[in-house]
Amino acid sequence: MTVGIVGAGQLGRMLALAGYPLGLDFLCLDPSPEAPAGQVAPLLNGAFTDRALLRELARRCEVVTFDWENVPVASLEAMQRGAHAARIAPPASALACGQDRVSEKQLFTRLGIPTTRWRAVDSRAALLAAIDAVGLPGVLKTRRLGYDGKGQAVVRTRAAAERAFARLGTVPLLYEEWVPFDCEVSMIGARGARGQVVTYPLCGNAHGGGILRITCAPFGRRRWQSLAARYLKRVLAHFRYRGILTIEFFVRGDRLIANEMAPRVHNSGHWTIEGAATSQFENHLRAILGWPLGETRALGHCAMINLIGHIPPRARLLALDGVHLHDYGKQPRPRRKVGHLTIVEPTAARRDARARRLALGLAAGARIP
Amino acid sequence: MTVGIVGAGQLGRMLALAGYPLGLDFLCLDPSPEAPAGQVAPLLNGAFTDRALLRELARRCEVVTFDWENVPVASLEAMQRGAHAARIAPPASALACGQDRVSEKQLFTRLGIPTTRWRAVDSRAALLAAIDAVGLPGVLKTRRLGYDGKGQAVVRTRAAAERAFARLGTVPLLYEEWVPFDCEVSMIGARGARGQVVTYPLCGNAHGGGILRITCAPFGRRRWQSLAARYLKRVLAHFRYRGILTIEFFVRGDRLIANEMAPRVHNSGHWTIEGAATSQFENHLRAILGWPLGETRALGHCAMINLIGHIPPRARLLALDGVHLHDYGKQPRPRRKVGHLTIVEPTAARRDARARRLALGLAAGARIP
Repeated sequence: MTVGIVGAGQLGRMLALAGYPLGLDFLCLDPSPEAPAGQVAPLLNGAFTDRALLRELARRCEVVTFDWENVPVASLEAMQRGAHAARIAPPASALACGQDRVSEKQLFTRLGIPTTRWRAVDSRAALLAAIDAVGLPGVLKTRRLGYDGKGQAVVRTRAAAERAFARLGTVPLLYEEWVPFDCEVSMIGARGARGQVVTYPLCGNAHGGGILRITCAPFGRRRWQSLAARYLKRVLAHFRYRGILTIEFFVRGDRLIANEMAPRVHNSGHWTIEGAATSQFENHLRAILGWPLGETRALGHCAMINLIGHIPPRARLLALDGVHLHDYGKQPRPRRKVGHLTIVEPTAARRDARARRLALGLAAGARIP
Repeated sequence: MTVGIVGAGQLGRMLALAGYPLGLDFLCLDPSPEAPAGQVAPLLNGAFTDRALLRELARRCEVVTFDWENVPVASLEAMQRGAHAARIAPPASALACGQDRVSEKQLFTRLGIPTTRWRAVDSRAALLAAIDAVGLPGVLKTRRLGYDGKGQAVVRTRAAAERAFARLGTVPLLYEEWVPFDCEVSMIGARGARGQVVTYPLCGNAHGGGILRITCAPFGRRRWQSLAARYLKRVLAHFRYRGILTIEFFVRGDRLIANEMAPRVHNSGHWTIEGAATSQFENHLRAILGWPLGETRALGHCAMINLIGHIPPRARLLALDGVHLHDYGKQPRPRRKVGHLTIVEPTAARRDARARRLALGLAAGARIP
């Protein structure tokens, strides 16, 4: 049985590596001939809009999924038509919603999920009106195609807002309040073919320079866990979803404020490979194939540390007891996610201390303790 | 960095799947175009003796290993010569020794490792002399190319021995005592580039029809663990070994009697994928690449159940909480190892009960509890 993946990044790579033990085959589509998943699975090399390649993918695969939130929705829709129509999961409707910050905010509001106050911005006048309505400080973001902090600016003054508008305002924008959060968390869960849902322990996420640096799980208060799971289930049910869905939240006191959703496996869930009874990658595959979903309990106190820019000397990393290395096979480049480390510890205190030491050691490029 | 694997069976497949997260690439050589590892890594399709393909493998790989104990030693030796000489690990000398039951027995004896009493048999007269020396019952085995109980016969009478000789005696044989063992165990360990050694918790193995059915680990008395590790280290040091080595033992009381060795990752070590801090596959790669070896401690009480002949309905297996499926991508065939299941439980009692139920359910083809 062959699973198609539109996009062959590290998420596609980890999907394939999770699927091989289940007896699955994979076929990816990506414009880059060096894409990480293309190193471990056959690759159709071409644009995400290449109709001939999309047809081939649909024809050769039992189900087609995607590993990137900016895959053109029209490409997925094209594969659902014609003589060799493919089953697409998660649904293209969820992808479309997640690609537009305005639709996403509207959905959260409609489903009773708290989110930031916001206004759409398509002119200088609209920006000034949005600042009047939402207040300062705030965040000006492109409505589409943002990731890892790209396409956004935190603004503290009207002048700064206008400068940010001059830089970003060639495309539709959104202005939202800046939330002075206590911490950031993400909820990852899967919905199966018969509507069954599993949710993972809550992930606590620390960002730096707009990029996820560290995730710890399980994380936070029991109330956050149940609240986040309740919100996630509303979105899953709304789309009659199949596969893994992630929602990121800001936490203030006991309130969760939805920041954004991703209709795919998520960086903050990489700890589940070694740290959960069933990884997010395996559960995504089980869900899109209509198989039973696997247990999501954590096997210990887990941390995932992203490797940004380059992989430190491999022998040094592997000398660290119980550190699991994931090298995505990417060329080094500043701010690029090229791999991650996972630790699974017996206590949260030990996990936290060890994750901090690892992250500091990586940041300093020094000897890692 | 590319690792070559001579042989592309399930062991090669699991080596590749363990190596991708470390950022490694793989290239396999196998006569079968449908070989399991060839489904997850590039495959040179041809005979193990094809000199052109062996040269290509040596040229394209930093190090070459093997996933089958009957790979021709001359093929490995050929790759160590010429303009693009390859580094081979484990050493060809260990492979050669393991391929000949007589050399293997002689080595065990030389290193002070208890083994069965035995005699080489190359004629009917030699067989009768061997029975006089060793006694009855005994086991008549081909000196070479035996696996999964093939090429051997348990004999209880002289007449049965002569019948077995008539069937097997076209090739050199070995006659050894039949040991009324309490149980069977295996010790798996790795030796690294600077002579460092790690050993896994002892595995308890149950066979049926000459094929491994179930492994439980950790298993047995502390004394068995230390004795088995001591014996393994002697063999590792003897060969200045690099990689994973396995020795199978019969247990009688507190004595371990070496049955055979395998210079490779081993079926009885598959539980280490989910059940140990570092899997046997990852540690084999670390060892042959000169990287630090990983922790070998068990993460719980583990059992591995082989799937023989065919994979039961996937949805039924995946509905079982905490059961990890490994499907090797092989066509069904009687007596063929086509996959395995792993469980990791909090207590030995629970592990044993669950493994028994799983094995019985598989044997009966019935609902698995």
